Amino acid sequence: MAIDPKNVLRLNMPQWQGSDRPDYRIGGRVLAAIAPDPQGPQETVPVPTSTGESRPVEGGITSRHALLEQIAMARAAIKRHAPEAIVTLGGDCHVSLAPFAWLNERYGDDLAILWVDAHPDIMGPEQMSNAHAHVLAMLMDEAASDFTDVVPRKIDPKNILYVGLTETTPYETGFVQKHGITRLSPEELAGSPAKVLEWVRSNGAKKIAVHFDVDVLDPTLYDFLLFNDPSLAPGAFDGVAKGRMLFEEVAGILNAVNAETDIVGLTIAEFTPWNVIDLSRSLRALPLLC
Amino acid sequence: MAIDPKNVLRLNMPQWQGSDRPDYRIGGRVLAAIAPDPQGPQETVPVPTSTGESRPVEGGITSRHALLEQIAMARAAIKRHAPEAIVTLGGDCHVSLAPFAWLNERYGDDLAILWVDAHPDIMGPEQMSNAHAHVLAMLMDEAASDFTDVVPRKIDPKNILYVGLTETTPYETGFVQKHGITRLSPEELAGSPAKVLEWVRSNGAKKIAVHFDVDVLDPTLYDFLLFNDPSLAPGAFDGVAKGRMLFEEVAGILNAVNAETDIVGLTIAEFTPWNVIDLSRSLRALPLLC
Repeated sequence: MAIDPKNVLRLNMPQWQGSDRPDYRIGGRVLAAIAPDPQGPQETVPVPTSTGESRPVEGGITSRHALLEQIAMARAAIKRHAPEAIVTLGGDCHVSLAPFAWLNERYGDDLAILWVDAHPDIMGPEQMSNAHAHVLAMLMDEAASDFTDVVPRKIDPKNILYVGLTETTPYETGFVQKHGITRLSPEELAGSPAKVLEWVRSNGAKKIAVHFDVDVLDPTLYDFLLFNDPSLAPGAFDGVAKGRMLFEEVAGILNAVNAETDIVGLTIAEFTPWNVIDLSRSLRALPLLC
Repeated sequence: MAIDPKNVLRLNMPQWQGSDRPDYRIGGRVLAAIAPDPQGPQETVPVPTSTGESRPVEGGITSRHALLEQIAMARAAIKRHAPEAIVTLGGDCHVSLAPFAWLNERYGDDLAILWVDAHPDIMGPEQMSNAHAHVLAMLMDEAASDFTDVVPRKIDPKNILYVGLTETTPYETGFVQKHGITRLSPEELAGSPAKVLEWVRSNGAKKIAVHFDVDVLDPTLYDFLLFNDPSLAPGAFDGVAKGRMLFEEVAGILNAVNAETDIVGLTIAEFTPWNVIDLSRSLRALPLLC
């Protein structure tokens, strides 16, 4: 790999406001705690806990003001270091906005995006008020200007590949088709990096940014996924598309891609280790700790 | 509670060298990530990862030099703040040495210790080379001078109560008896704070330091205990005393004690959330992250 680990920015961003699920804050903090120690600079975007106060929907987006504040802090942190590459540890999927915008500005048409996710993340306020489902549309400049202002160069849909995308809604299917974005389902991938490598070679980009939403993984095999929230009733996520991949398949694809290109962006998002989230609640019952 | 949260030092100490189990470092980092945000100062003792190098036994103690270095850093961190109270998040049980020594120096005979642990932690090098099993003996000045040098005032055994202690070895039983330390088994506690309160009232101390080794909990009910290490063969811990308490019982005791006194020290130690430790290994397979 041609990227010097000392020039990789580790961006910790335990944002939950994009999904309106406060548990993503703890998940993000845990992810930062278990990740290998960074060898380059590290920045942590301060993300307030949920205080139980109202999270207002403004212009169709929940916690719009908090999100814009956090994006601005992430962008400032990135600019302070002007890194060659960025590892972003979320938090919810919205955390990719600032780092991917910056990488696209830096690398231009030499950058391609692998969006490794069970969902396409191209909705707008009319489809859903949680902006974590909008983030790729924002990066394509398909959103309100207060969000796209941090995207100086929009991502060209021909430079986007969906990896592991499952069932999409009619709106999502239409958007993906209209923009001509290539999509590979878990079954099309068939556990091999071959089709991803084929797309990358055909695209020609030599720098790759990877958005890895862990919900692309099979929720029957991995306990740390939203769909396994023990506080919710069985069936709470009926009708929501779920992932069908293995962690090893994702790792295999990324390593195969990295052998032919430079991975310059890696986001890991939407990690919810329920057993430690549960313990975090128990800890609040201890004296002195609160 | 009379302790101002702003005067409580949060001491993160993901030490593993006292147990010679590197996984305690990740456990300690996760514990710090899931704990409620501190309202006072926070210090993190830098603890190197295991590099696979030899961990030499010197004077009967594994990683003696590393432990002494970390104790010195913890002591310096505590002195910088001179807090009213200290929350210490381990790491292994050895992390209580510096904060408890400091609290005992500060509060003198007005301090009592609740050692909430399946094990008494009073061994010496002849019984075991892992110093996490020595820490309470060190606090009683029953150890080599390089460790007891950080204990300016030794803890009087009459000010120690074992809470949840289970089966002890003949050496441990003899030590506990010889020093006249009171012990309460899970069955003697019977799920109630009554006997602990009785002891605290009889002792008369108004300041309490609590060492909470999570291995006092029942390993059949809590997955985050050493005894549930999935990498070890079944039976690997046969013959080792195991806890039999519930988290709610421990919390109930501590809150009842805190209602009559001030808890001024709380250590949580030996936390090993195996599913996220396992994921931390998987993350090392991803490009850019390492």
